[in-house]
Amino acid sequence: MGRDLSALFDPVSVAVVGASDDPAKYGHAIAAQAVRANGRRPVHLVNRRGGTVLGRSAAPSLSAIGEPVDLAVVSVPAAGFEDAVDEALRCGARAIVAITAGFAETGEAGRARQLAVAERVRAAGAVMVGPNCLGIADNTTDLFLASDTFTPGGVALLSQSGNLALELQLRFRPHGLGFSRFVSLGNQADVTLVDLLADCARHEGTRAIAVYAEDFADGRAFAEAAAAAGKPVVLLTAGRGDASARSAQSHTGALTTSADVVTAACRDAGVELVTTPRELTVALAALTGARRPAGRRVAVLTDGGGHGVVAADAVEAAGFTVPELTGPTRRHLRETLWEQSAVANPVDLAGMGEQDPGSYARTVAALLAAEEVDAVLMTGYFGGYAAADGGLGGGGLVLAEGEREAARLIADHHRATAKPLVVQSMYPDSPSCRTLAAAGIPVFAATEDAARALAATAPGPLHTGVTPLPPAAAPLRDSGYMGTRRALEEAGLAFPAAREIHDETELLAAAAEFPGPYVLKALHLLHKSDAGGVVLGLAGPDELLAAFREMHARLGAPAYSVEAMADLTDGIELIVGVNRDPRFGPVAMVGLGGVLAEALHDVAFTLAPVSAGRALSLLRGLRTAALLDGVRGRPPVDVAAAAAAVEAITAFAAAHPEIAEIEVNPLLVSPHGALALDSRAVLA
Amino acid sequence: MGRDLSALFDPVSVAVVGASDDPAKYGHAIAAQAVRANGRRPVHLVNRRGGTVLGRSAAPSLSAIGEPVDLAVVSVPAAGFEDAVDEALRCGARAIVAITAGFAETGEAGRARQLAVAERVRAAGAVMVGPNCLGIADNTTDLFLASDTFTPGGVALLSQSGNLALELQLRFRPHGLGFSRFVSLGNQADVTLVDLLADCARHEGTRAIAVYAEDFADGRAFAEAAAAAGKPVVLLTAGRGDASARSAQSHTGALTTSADVVTAACRDAGVELVTTPRELTVALAALTGARRPAGRRVAVLTDGGGHGVVAADAVEAAGFTVPELTGPTRRHLRETLWEQSAVANPVDLAGMGEQDPGSYARTVAALLAAEEVDAVLMTGYFGGYAAADGGLGGGGLVLAEGEREAARLIADHHRATAKPLVVQSMYPDSPSCRTLAAAGIPVFAATEDAARALAATAPGPLHTGVTPLPPAAAPLRDSGYMGTRRALEEAGLAFPAAREIHDETELLAAAAEFPGPYVLKALHLLHKSDAGGVVLGLAGPDELLAAFREMHARLGAPAYSVEAMADLTDGIELIVGVNRDPRFGPVAMVGLGGVLAEALHDVAFTLAPVSAGRALSLLRGLRTAALLDGVRGRPPVDVAAAAAAVEAITAFAAAHPEIAEIEVNPLLVSPHGALALDSRAVLA
Repeated sequence: MGRDLSALFDPVSVAVVGASDDPAKYGHAIAAQAVRANGRRPVHLVNRRGGTVLGRSAAPSLSAIGEPVDLAVVSVPAAGFEDAVDEALRCGARAIVAITAGFAETGEAGRARQLAVAERVRAAGAVMVGPNCLGIADNTTDLFLASDTFTPGGVALLSQSGNLALELQLRFRPHGLGFSRFVSLGNQADVTLVDLLADCARHEGTRAIAVYAEDFADGRAFAEAAAAAGKPVVLLTAGRGDASARSAQSHTGALTTSADVVTAACRDAGVELVTTPRELTVALAALTGARRPAGRRVAVLTDGGGHGVVAADAVEAAGFTVPELTGPTRRHLRETLWEQSAVANPVDLAGMGEQDPGSYARTVAALLAAEEVDAVLMTGYFGGYAAADGGLGGGGLVLAEGEREAARLIADHHRATAKPLVVQSMYPDSPSCRTLAAAGIPVFAATEDAARALAATAPGPLHTGVTPLPPAAAPLRDSGYMGTRRALEEAGLAFPAAREIHDETELLAAAAEFPGPYVLKALHLLHKSDAGGVVLGLAGPDELLAAFREMHARLGAPAYSVEAMADLTDGIELIVGVNRDPRFGPVAMVGLGGVLAEALHDVAFTLAPVSAGRALSLLRGLRTAALLDGVRGRPPVDVAAAAAAVEAITAFAAAHPEIAEIEVNPLLVSPHGALALDSRAVLA
Repeated sequence: MGRDLSALFDPVSVAVVGASDDPAKYGHAIAAQAVRANGRRPVHLVNRRGGTVLGRSAAPSLSAIGEPVDLAVVSVPAAGFEDAVDEALRCGARAIVAITAGFAETGEAGRARQLAVAERVRAAGAVMVGPNCLGIADNTTDLFLASDTFTPGGVALLSQSGNLALELQLRFRPHGLGFSRFVSLGNQADVTLVDLLADCARHEGTRAIAVYAEDFADGRAFAEAAAAAGKPVVLLTAGRGDASARSAQSHTGALTTSADVVTAACRDAGVELVTTPRELTVALAALTGARRPAGRRVAVLTDGGGHGVVAADAVEAAGFTVPELTGPTRRHLRETLWEQSAVANPVDLAGMGEQDPGSYARTVAALLAAEEVDAVLMTGYFGGYAAADGGLGGGGLVLAEGEREAARLIADHHRATAKPLVVQSMYPDSPSCRTLAAAGIPVFAATEDAARALAATAPGPLHTGVTPLPPAAAPLRDSGYMGTRRALEEAGLAFPAAREIHDETELLAAAAEFPGPYVLKALHLLHKSDAGGVVLGLAGPDELLAAFREMHARLGAPAYSVEAMADLTDGIELIVGVNRDPRFGPVAMVGLGGVLAEALHDVAFTLAPVSAGRALSLLRGLRTAALLDGVRGRPPVDVAAAAAAVEAITAFAAAHPEIAEIEVNPLLVSPHGALALDSRAVLA
């Protein structure tokens, strides 16, 4: 169910501790906002000097108010913070909004201080946002506890940055977007992003949740909460370039960047990931409308070729197709449009729209009705004839009226279908475009934004939810080569026959147990092949013995493994690994293996454990997926066996929190199955 | 030198043929514009019914004007077009602007008609823009021969779309960008994009050239003209998704898409390639300023962490670094900024900018002066304190004045250095931001635009100019396997020993000439290995003979090749090919070869011929470039030999216009050199 945040978002009464008449103090701005809701609930101002604040009498302390306080905003100097919180709890506060800064953001001592406060808050059965936050607001309960006002609307914004929230406020306006709630996350000492996400998911007044976070804390819980939210979640995050700081011992580790993990978690959880405030706004403008295209076939409509061509490219670059129209739709357009109009797709009215704006409406209707079309993008001049300045092209009064009528008809046609219609207009603020926007049709000034909006509404092919972590299994007793191998074998992974040996006698005994060719591996090295610790293709016992003598003289390893050499014919080497991320838990990687793995970085990531079905779609999504089906006359490999191996490896890793990195490399996939040729594990 | 277009852009006199009082006719709009320049030169209106047009007496024909006409705009129905052009030429016109439509865009007959007209125009020593164009304008000579006016400025716009030009006009305004010239390209029957590009390169009033083209005609000449322009050229083009229509016989052909070719040509020519009107505007806003960063190290400055983080990511995604500041710069910032300000980079004033806007100016000065910084990006709230509404945060009067002063100081600091400063502001229209813009500092509302602007100014690492085509060599006599091989060998490429054989006697004689192991190839197949027409690793004459008998029984080829098998140890297989593009001429492709080539599409393109130096940088730019230096203990291969082979192959192909596709695949590159193991050519 998540934590009860009702006292935070709909308190019975509010007190602002540190309210001030000094406009340079944050306690002034927040008090000025807080008192706006006085009619809804009592709002008390507290200033240790008493007197008046904002023309109201201020209590010298919370206790002096003389009645219980449900929510206390604490905006006092850091030195007095603990006392203020303790007093608030004594006065019955069930929620604290902690503005005061100077805690975890200043170092370890500060972190310890805020943790101690958070513990006392929780012990009292209360909740606390912050410290080091800018406040909260809930437009659905007239709660204004931040220095700025936020236009009411359906978006809950959970943000670690105040200025970005202000930019979003500006960007939302032209799209008719507004805020249900605003929460400045601060240091998340008690109430976390995950708590807030879960509460906003339950909140009736919230239609979509926007998050700006630099610190996810428990990223796994974030992904699970987002996947369960039941409404759009858009995440603006940063740190893509932060790939260098990590040190890792397996290739999986080296190949997994922070950005890969966040991207994979978002895709799994169905979170729309964006990188700028503008992109966030575009995604929300599309996602707050309830429409989703059933497929990826887009019809592009314009009155002037250039816009159609540019939009078609943008739409294709966003992962859609702009298929040639066929059959009845095309015939209908051919009959109703001009001879010079293009009807194949992009549909280009070619000047007809300027003479007869109604042709826009008729064409939109035909395209929305066409079975071969999943979504429509209208682009270009529409809006210009009725624009304030009549448009650059200079439309007359008749044209302007015709366009406004066309806008009304387009809105009607849109209402009559469930398909998405997205508009790019040179005149997004024109009366005609405002008519479209009022009907729930997203209108953008830029072509790339219209294409991005469509992309936001199309479900990703790999979005399959977040599988909960299994209970932890008994820890791996032996994380050495043989121990890891045995554990993975027990988990269902197939390996070639192998025997650990320590001397020539054991070597020859092992060779007697299964036929050659053999592989010899030295067992004290994590990257055996890099150090000359692996010899392949030893035909019989003689070659094996010779290789052993040479290797042992060179490396002097305490133990070796004699293995049956797999038949590499028609096989493909994959790499499958799981890396335990400090925020997102076990993250699986599958990709092309062998020497090329590092060079190509043709790998895919997802939160582990991974079902065979999802593994299959990840493998099919690799750039090199064509290799799986056999190229140049090679037979296709057993992809299902590879997918089953991925399931076995990732389930094992997910059940072993003590394993920091585990990797099967190569996983040989041939037409006859999947075989793990080498593996390694690194304990945390 | 290019064609003389002086009569087009600065005619002595102008006549509009087809001038009309009917506002629905294009001849009305264009006449209304044309007469605006009456003071600069005589402007005559021609309407076959005579009478008055726009209150002026109209001549019934060009001849009736009674004086020479230097430039004639022809906007008459298609039926009367030829007569109108012929009359214009008789009346001494040196330039025709042909508005009339209904020619090449309607099919072959129309194309033939426009070609005939173009020939007569050229025979008369005149030039013609169009037909099927929307007119031209030159703000530097008061020439207004299009239906719209274009704000004066430094950008020459050559466009195949009228509506896109109108959108650009709207987008240019907030950036202070305007037009020196506008030319609607139309069908380019006579004057081409290349002619216009060359003329605009010479035009003093033009600082940058913007092109929207769907049809390049001679793309090679376009690239050469752009490379020689000496001023920024930005190309908005389309057709990226148009990869499917091509059919090709070599892998080079199949791997080369239209978009690859355009992208390669633009990179070679130093043309900034963009995909939307918005991106074109952003690139021009950056490129019309004269500043170029000397390197890729960017300092990001903000007053609120979120904006800094988002901007740093955007800048890194655009190919720049945001390196940690060190030494004196960091010490200086540490001393002058607040304790909580971050000085590592991004530099975050952390609220100091709100208290003391002068801190923005001081920090910009320090960053512009820092040796470790190539460019500065300032992002976030700056502009808000002096915005019309005081900003969302609500700045006071003192703050507003402080910010305006800071803007003036930033402009001064900017003038004092040559480094680029780019600004993203939530309030781009504020007085402070207008002060910055007036000083030549590009200001954008969106973070991604600021990053894109920086990217536009950074020279690409691979931009090396367009090498002219060599004179055609004597055509290849024999494009069969042996003929192509011989020709490439003569061109300097190394192959293993090989003998063409037709029977067992010749086979054994060949085997006696060089030692095994051998390779046997059937010679009647373009893709020999796909059809089982290649057998590798035949140890001696016996194995060779057996393989020959088996293959001959199966394939019955008329000829075979016996070849020395190359030592593949530590080698990497590359693919090198040249595809003759109908627009851009020979286009070279280099990439990873072998079975992976198609699956990975890890290939690079450039206009051929390719110098060894450029080949080296292309090879180094491959995703799999790490393979060249040896991975997992392999020795590095001889990349210089590979580059020399690319030079030899591409020079050969460039000198042979009769070759449609030529390919060396694989080109084996080992630590000991480069060896062509197979090659094929397809004649046009």
